[in-house]
Amino acid sequence: MRKNNSLKERLHEIIFEADTKAGKLFDLVLLGLILLSVVVVMLETIPALHERYFEWFYAVEWFFTVIFTVEYVMRLYSVQSPVKYARSPFGLIDLISILPTYLSIFVAGSQALLVVRILRLLRIFRILRMGRFLWAGQVISKALQASRHKIAVFMFFVTQLVIVIGAVMYFVEGPGNPGFSSIPQSIYWAVVTLTTVGFGDITPQTPLGQFLASLVMIMGYGIIAVPTGIVSAEMAAAHRRQITTQACRHCSLDGHDDDAVFCKYCGWKLNEDSDTT
Amino acid sequence: MRKNNSLKERLHEIIFEADTKAGKLFDLVLLGLILLSVVVVMLETIPALHERYFEWFYAVEWFFTVIFTVEYVMRLYSVQSPVKYARSPFGLIDLISILPTYLSIFVAGSQALLVVRILRLLRIFRILRMGRFLWAGQVISKALQASRHKIAVFMFFVTQLVIVIGAVMYFVEGPGNPGFSSIPQSIYWAVVTLTTVGFGDITPQTPLGQFLASLVMIMGYGIIAVPTGIVSAEMAAAHRRQITTQACRHCSLDGHDDDAVFCKYCGWKLNEDSDTT
Amino acid sequence: MRKNNSLKERLHEIIFEADTKAGKLFDLVLLGLILLSVVVVMLETIPALHERYFEWFYAVEWFFTVIFTVEYVMRLYSVQSPVKYARSPFGLIDLISILPTYLSIFVAGSQALLVVRILRLLRIFRILRMGRFLWAGQVISKALQASRHKIAVFMFFVTQLVIVIGAVMYFVEGPGNPGFSSIPQSIYWAVVTLTTVGFGDITPQTPLGQFLASLVMIMGYGIIAVPTGIVSAEMAAAHRRQITTQACRHCSLDGHDDDAVFCKYCGWKLNEDSDTT
Amino acid sequence: MRKNNSLKERLHEIIFEADTKAGKLFDLVLLGLILLSVVVVMLETIPALHERYFEWFYAVEWFFTVIFTVEYVMRLYSVQSPVKYARSPFGLIDLISILPTYLSIFVAGSQALLVVRILRLLRIFRILRMGRFLWAGQVISKALQASRHKIAVFMFFVTQLVIVIGAVMYFVEGPGNPGFSSIPQSIYWAVVTLTTVGFGDITPQTPLGQFLASLVMIMGYGIIAVPTGIVSAEMAAAHRRQITTQACRHCSLDGHDDDAVFCKYCGWKLNEDSDTT
Repeated sequence: MRKNNSLKERLHEIIFEADTKAGKLFDLVLLGLILLSVVVVMLETIPALHERYFEWFYAVEWFFTVIFTVEYVMRLYSVQSPVKYARSPFGLIDLISILPTYLSIFVAGSQALLVVRILRLLRIFRILRMGRFLWAGQVISKALQASRHKIAVFMFFVTQLVIVIGAVMYFVEGPGNPGFSSIPQSIYWAVVTLTTVGFGDITPQTPLGQFLASLVMIMGYGIIAVPTGIVSAEMAAAHRRQITTQACRHCSLDGHDDDAVFCKYCGWKLNEDSDTT
Repeated sequence: MRKNNSLKERLHEIIFEADTKAGKLFDLVLLGLILLSVVVVMLETIPALHERYFEWFYAVEWFFTVIFTVEYVMRLYSVQSPVKYARSPFGLIDLISILPTYLSIFVAGSQALLVVRILRLLRIFRILRMGRFLWAGQVISKALQASRHKIAVFMFFVTQLVIVIGAVMYFVEGPGNPGFSSIPQSIYWAVVTLTTVGFGDITPQTPLGQFLASLVMIMGYGIIAVPTGIVSAEMAAAHRRQITTQACRHCSLDGHDDDAVFCKYCGWKLNEDSDTT
Repeated sequence: MRKNNSLKERLHEIIFEADTKAGKLFDLVLLGLILLSVVVVMLETIPALHERYFEWFYAVEWFFTVIFTVEYVMRLYSVQSPVKYARSPFGLIDLISILPTYLSIFVAGSQALLVVRILRLLRIFRILRMGRFLWAGQVISKALQASRHKIAVFMFFVTQLVIVIGAVMYFVEGPGNPGFSSIPQSIYWAVVTLTTVGFGDITPQTPLGQFLASLVMIMGYGIIAVPTGIVSAEMAAAHRRQITTQACRHCSLDGHDDDAVFCKYCGWKLNEDSDTT
Repeated sequence: MRKNNSLKERLHEIIFEADTKAGKLFDLVLLGLILLSVVVVMLETIPALHERYFEWFYAVEWFFTVIFTVEYVMRLYSVQSPVKYARSPFGLIDLISILPTYLSIFVAGSQALLVVRILRLLRIFRILRMGRFLWAGQVISKALQASRHKIAVFMFFVTQLVIVIGAVMYFVEGPGNPGFSSIPQSIYWAVVTLTTVGFGDITPQTPLGQFLASLVMIMGYGIIAVPTGIVSAEMAAAHRRQITTQACRHCSLDGHDDDAVFCKYCGWKLNEDSDTT
């Protein structure tokens, strides 16, 4: 790659890459600013703080917004295809992270939307070159992707189950219990109960209702095993696949552990320079 | 199969099959109507809405009921064996989905039973030809079936445990705590606690009661591992079996392990160059 | 075994064995009586029922107690070694199931202890010859036994963790929050929270307390994975062992599925009469 | 090892080793004292007991502190490298276990910190030579270590998810519901809900809030499967590795798979007739 130090290319190097010292520093400062700005947005919503330091929050918010706007413009300028960047998930998040402040000039109270800035932290994976974490994330997402059909089917049945339970409890508890005054609210209770969350804001009062609730809870106890079983099995499969990417050059059998130096089937020395991590 | 376009056969094609364009459209419209009708039934039970739009709900309900009645009659007419269809699970659900409205002429308040219409959505699997989802559902149900004896034994022990815990807590908390005023209610508390739902409507007040409750909770923490472990193991076994889709060329049975060289059913040598991933 | 129809031997056959028709009938009637007596004991503790039907409950309880006493005496009489039976777990449960009624002559209110009768239902496994359930129970108990050291270590750490969390929350929330007024009560809260039961009878009120509670909850989210992982792994191992009890007579390799007819490694016919269930 | 019975060496033998009778007795007495002292610290915080037995607690606490101080000094004296011991985790815990009482002369109320003494119980593993428990602990910690990157990534996503959910619920429920009056408090609710703890101190009141909460709970139901799946897979892998205790006769390293014929570390042929179960 030819290197001419035009401003555009230098900016791209600093902003989009993390190989150079300047690029790394830029990324770390940016992460720090993102975290800080999210904390400020959160604190601003606490009534006691909001009343006392209203003007400070206002100033700090515009400070962050101006910085992130400059960064966004620089990204648009330095990237080869501005449209492609603007439409990418990261580009959209970058834009949404600054828009609410400008909107707040016209619409009051929209600043709190700024909390979506937290999603910008997803860059952390690219920045810190955390290969092991990236790899771990890939294993998880692969396992989840492999089990997406099973989880969808499971969710479909749970949704139907919750609606039927809600309707039944509406009949049993409904007349006397204000918590079960409509089917949608009874469904809300069924979700709270079946997922073992159990807020306790709505509880059955009649003996029959408590008996049915007991059945629902024990059912929920068993049902929680299903998604866990699905993901566990996929995770175990991903784990098995992951440790067996290296085949012996002599007998061409694989399935060797990460720390294996010799083939466990024929005793031949395994290829040392192959990176299996 | 000979094809004569009698009305009966055309109806069967549209209503029971999803291969033709008309059949697909019919199914999609039906699913939409089912979903809509369930939402209407739910909304009707919300007191505020019920009071204001009582007459609208009444009209909409009869509208859906008439449509579903026509559909049911057409199904009975077009199917080869009406009795067999009427007795099948889907046939019964179809009937139960329309009966409550007619019953409401004689018995007030029975409309809410219409929520069972949601079960008609189970047709969705057949309609959308979602092979992958159907297959995922089969893996789950196979794993659950394979573990049904273990889960039954587990439930049997949990039931006994819950009764004993309830009786003990009745003695410890009973006299002073209205939440533990009888053994059945104490058992209800034990279920709420052991399943980690924890509504909080009944809680131990005495130090001894809180200590025993702590033991129960930690026990529940360990016990929840059992059904999960059962289902996980079966799911992993199902997964192991499922990933080998290689069929024997001789007896055309599949289900061979990854490392199998000979067919386990007929002893024929398996095709070695077939890709089994 | 020689068979002389002395009364003692006939009684033993009926009471302790379930092979003959009379023995089976005896067991079923006994199970029914046990279930009924437990239900009666439970209902008796409901204040409304207790007040109205006090005398009925009294009569029914003595009825069951007399029957079970006769049964106990007959067991002692017909068994070969009465002392051994009396000291066995089942013998002790049988005795404890009748004692409270006699005690109630001297000590009021001890009847509710009769609920331990529910443990007599454990005989159900022997009676109904439910081989598959018995086998399922053995797999579970083997997996639990194999993981007992790991679970003990886990419990040890959880206990220490809960004490430390309780002490920290006592400092943070203690002064102003009556729910955290002592370390033991704060430990009770820590157990309620870490096990994800979450009654809500005691909740943190200060921002710092809520922040620490959030950390505890997320920790609990991860910790619940440990016992599940332990039991899952053991259950999977038990599952693997269970399907691999049959070795090929020709190549002596095992690991064949339950439904395998031919060895998957050498194609040799597997021994058909070996029972692998 | 040469043995000269100087005081220093005898002390070391008694305090740091558990081979001799004296050493074992010392350790058991020490464990008992630690447990007792922790119980006393806990009881002291109960207001009713504190008021009545204030002076007794004061005396008992100094009694334990003096004993543990003498023990600490003896450890420093008898160990070969006092600095290394003082800086080790056990050394620090030993020091922190006595400091609060001395601090309480200057700062009131710091005694409750003494509860950290419970951590001294971690010595229990060394003392009771519970090899099986130690080994079980190692399996667990190895599985957790192997999955630490995946769990970190999972925690990272859960943290972001919880912040976004908190912000959304702040908008939906915030204005009318005092429980959602600020984003940090809404995040606290999101943690309580997503982890299925469900205190119920803060609950959504609006229909839209209850609907969103239902989605969050069902999401939490699926998310809890992820850490469990991660740990289960690692535990299963650790289990698979662990069941092969066969060590290579050449390099004496173990950890070979069941089907290994050659040592994976040095390539030496493994002993075939060794039993690997």
